[in-house]
Amino acid sequence: MSLQELKQKVYAANQELFRRGLILLNWGNVSAIDREKGIMVIKPANISFAAMTPDNMAVVDLCGKMLEGGKPSSDMPTHLELYKGFPDIGAIAHTHSLNATAFAQAGKNLEPFGTTHADCFFGNVPCARALTTEELRGEYEKNTAHVILERFTGHDYLATPAVLVANHGAYAWGESPERAVEVAVMLEAVAELAIKTLVLNPLTEPIEQPLLERHYYRKHKKQS
Amino acid sequence: MSLQELKQKVYAANQELFRRGLILLNWGNVSAIDREKGIMVIKPANISFAAMTPDNMAVVDLCGKMLEGGKPSSDMPTHLELYKGFPDIGAIAHTHSLNATAFAQAGKNLEPFGTTHADCFFGNVPCARALTTEELRGEYEKNTAHVILERFTGHDYLATPAVLVANHGAYAWGESPERAVEVAVMLEAVAELAIKTLVLNPLTEPIEQPLLERHYYRKHKKQS
Amino acid sequence: MSLQELKQKVYAANQELFRRGLILLNWGNVSAIDREKGIMVIKPANISFAAMTPDNMAVVDLCGKMLEGGKPSSDMPTHLELYKGFPDIGAIAHTHSLNATAFAQAGKNLEPFGTTHADCFFGNVPCARALTTEELRGEYEKNTAHVILERFTGHDYLATPAVLVANHGAYAWGESPERAVEVAVMLEAVAELAIKTLVLNPLTEPIEQPLLERHYYRKHKKQS
Amino acid sequence: MSLQELKQKVYAANQELFRRGLILLNWGNVSAIDREKGIMVIKPANISFAAMTPDNMAVVDLCGKMLEGGKPSSDMPTHLELYKGFPDIGAIAHTHSLNATAFAQAGKNLEPFGTTHADCFFGNVPCARALTTEELRGEYEKNTAHVILERFTGHDYLATPAVLVANHGAYAWGESPERAVEVAVMLEAVAELAIKTLVLNPLTEPIEQPLLERHYYRKHKKQS
Repeated sequence: MSLQELKQKVYAANQELFRRGLILLNWGNVSAIDREKGIMVIKPANISFAAMTPDNMAVVDLCGKMLEGGKPSSDMPTHLELYKGFPDIGAIAHTHSLNATAFAQAGKNLEPFGTTHADCFFGNVPCARALTTEELRGEYEKNTAHVILERFTGHDYLATPAVLVANHGAYAWGESPERAVEVAVMLEAVAELAIKTLVLNPLTEPIEQPLLERHYYRKHKKQS
Repeated sequence: MSLQELKQKVYAANQELFRRGLILLNWGNVSAIDREKGIMVIKPANISFAAMTPDNMAVVDLCGKMLEGGKPSSDMPTHLELYKGFPDIGAIAHTHSLNATAFAQAGKNLEPFGTTHADCFFGNVPCARALTTEELRGEYEKNTAHVILERFTGHDYLATPAVLVANHGAYAWGESPERAVEVAVMLEAVAELAIKTLVLNPLTEPIEQPLLERHYYRKHKKQS
Repeated sequence: MSLQELKQKVYAANQELFRRGLILLNWGNVSAIDREKGIMVIKPANISFAAMTPDNMAVVDLCGKMLEGGKPSSDMPTHLELYKGFPDIGAIAHTHSLNATAFAQAGKNLEPFGTTHADCFFGNVPCARALTTEELRGEYEKNTAHVILERFTGHDYLATPAVLVANHGAYAWGESPERAVEVAVMLEAVAELAIKTLVLNPLTEPIEQPLLERHYYRKHKKQS
Repeated sequence: MSLQELKQKVYAANQELFRRGLILLNWGNVSAIDREKGIMVIKPANISFAAMTPDNMAVVDLCGKMLEGGKPSSDMPTHLELYKGFPDIGAIAHTHSLNATAFAQAGKNLEPFGTTHADCFFGNVPCARALTTEELRGEYEKNTAHVILERFTGHDYLATPAVLVANHGAYAWGESPERAVEVAVMLEAVAELAIKTLVLNPLTEPIEQPLLERHYYRKHKKQS
């Protein structure tokens, strides 16, 4: 894919996330990586969704050096570290969407309470731990990625392509910008379902493993 | 009605369910049966609502054999079994709509808390039990219909034209695709009312039988 | 005002109530009375909001006899009795709007928790009692009005121009159809505020009388 | 800036607040001050958002004397007192927006539960105390400003540019009408997040100071 096409796709995915109501004001961003060329394209900082164009998408190398377009979103180092830690993903969407962020702010894993969840995520969407004061005061954005990667140690990041970051918001990922946005949309819907479910019964138990597997593998081919 | 008309109606009902916000992404479907011709028309799998046309509606025989149009939704066997078990219905709508699904995920019957409910459903909208591991691992979609039919043993499926499926979502039905969609819309509204009611008073009691009957029979002719 | 103008106004008020989301499907209606001519105009039964025109508004005399237009809404006798009991009102709006109906279903008065409420209603919006089985089986719609009138004994129906009916929904009134709709909109907003307030603190106390009076009389001239 | 430009900006900010759903009916208003000219421009009373134009914005001097345009909103004295007490602000937005007002009605400070909050407000958004009966019966609108100013004694009103007023609603401010509206939008979003968070865990603790500082100072230059 040409750089121009990638910029167009990242632009469209950012707009789609906004259009779907997962981004209020300017709180969120989508990026994509071209691992062969060694570049990442990400939403620019301080440009409104109305003013944004494919050409002002920020292009950086994998060390974060600006190559062209606008100034990258301040979350840029988080995205770069996630691409390093998750070698099989091509795009990332970050949101402060209402229901997913409520789970993040409450510091709770989003448990699978039904087949809607199981169609999207193989198990709970985990909530990564809060950063220590040291991590906060250091390379904050990089460390945000590191607590995410730490949380996925021993977990399959392709089977559960999203995470909650305690006190913060959500990250979702996929092979393409379109897919990362779709996962973010599913995460928000599943989180809203879960809140309503917990309102009806705060002691609702997660669904059992066989149902989770049945639905997950109906949508996703089993890897063997 | 010609097959072409039936496909058009099923198409329009699927779009209406989407337009009303009861389907997010691709999570839901409407079907209709022509019992004389021995065919069912159902939403195709893997086609977005934007790309859908009357012509790609999936047409199958009552054993599920594809006759024309797109590949049928994976829920197709559930629909077929429900048509077998409920001989007087002509159409089915399946959703993961937010409030109805919250009840399903909480595993609770949707009790009648007011006349809005009683205008639509004669008594609670029951929540069918979760499937056993054996049922899950076997013919899952057929077994989903079987727990629904089991739940309606001794109940009038025409007086209460909807069900919740534990950990899953909702099914609604009627004589036509338009009516099945309308029942799904009413179910979602009544579920939202019920959640708000339970937030205000978790111990709210269902309305009593005389009020239920008064309203139900004002809208529906009493069968004698 | 000519009958034609009144029909136009009742038509517009019904459409406005629908447009504002207080009526789902066909659940609600607005009426207006011309006391001099001895007629009431009310939304017709069984006509969708899309198909409705000023000309199919139902016109009845004050005994409920149909004079022209469509068949009147089944709630017609409730409206007529309220006009008899509340001699100074000119129009009534009935809804099953989500938040007001949640209070009605929970059987709770809507207490004044803030100045938004006090700007509209002088004290709580009361919840009329449930009907007895005898009242239900008798002239149900008339009796619905009677429990409302009973609830307002000794209360000023102009200072609190709305009521909740237990297990049912809301009635709002005013001097004109526009005003009755506006009161219904305010009631729904105040009910939504109250639910959120009670979620944050279930023991929230109603505001005190001096604040209620300060706001109410800022908007409404004090009668002396 | 010319008076004409200021009127245009205040008009646009009022419309934006309405368009974003923070004002229902006519419940809210935006003002701006020109401290050099000694005038304030504020939304007029009793004019619908549809009928409003830049020319009917109310222009008053800093004692509240009407200079041109419509009759000023009844909240005018609150705005004037806030401008006196907060010498570095240029505009104020007042709303009864749903989620912020729920906190005000519950009489609770809006605590910082996440980085979304910390990006906007340096610490909690405080809830000013209820007015005494004496304050209510006296110069109510002025006294509303006085309890706000009292609440900010020893606090930085530029670092936390919003307040909740017990039993009432919210005020937000900034250097310009656009910014005051943006702060009101952020306040409402953060309040909605907080309610959902407290539904999930009523004992959620505010975030710790280092995270608050990290995010706040990422968006706002540290003053030294």
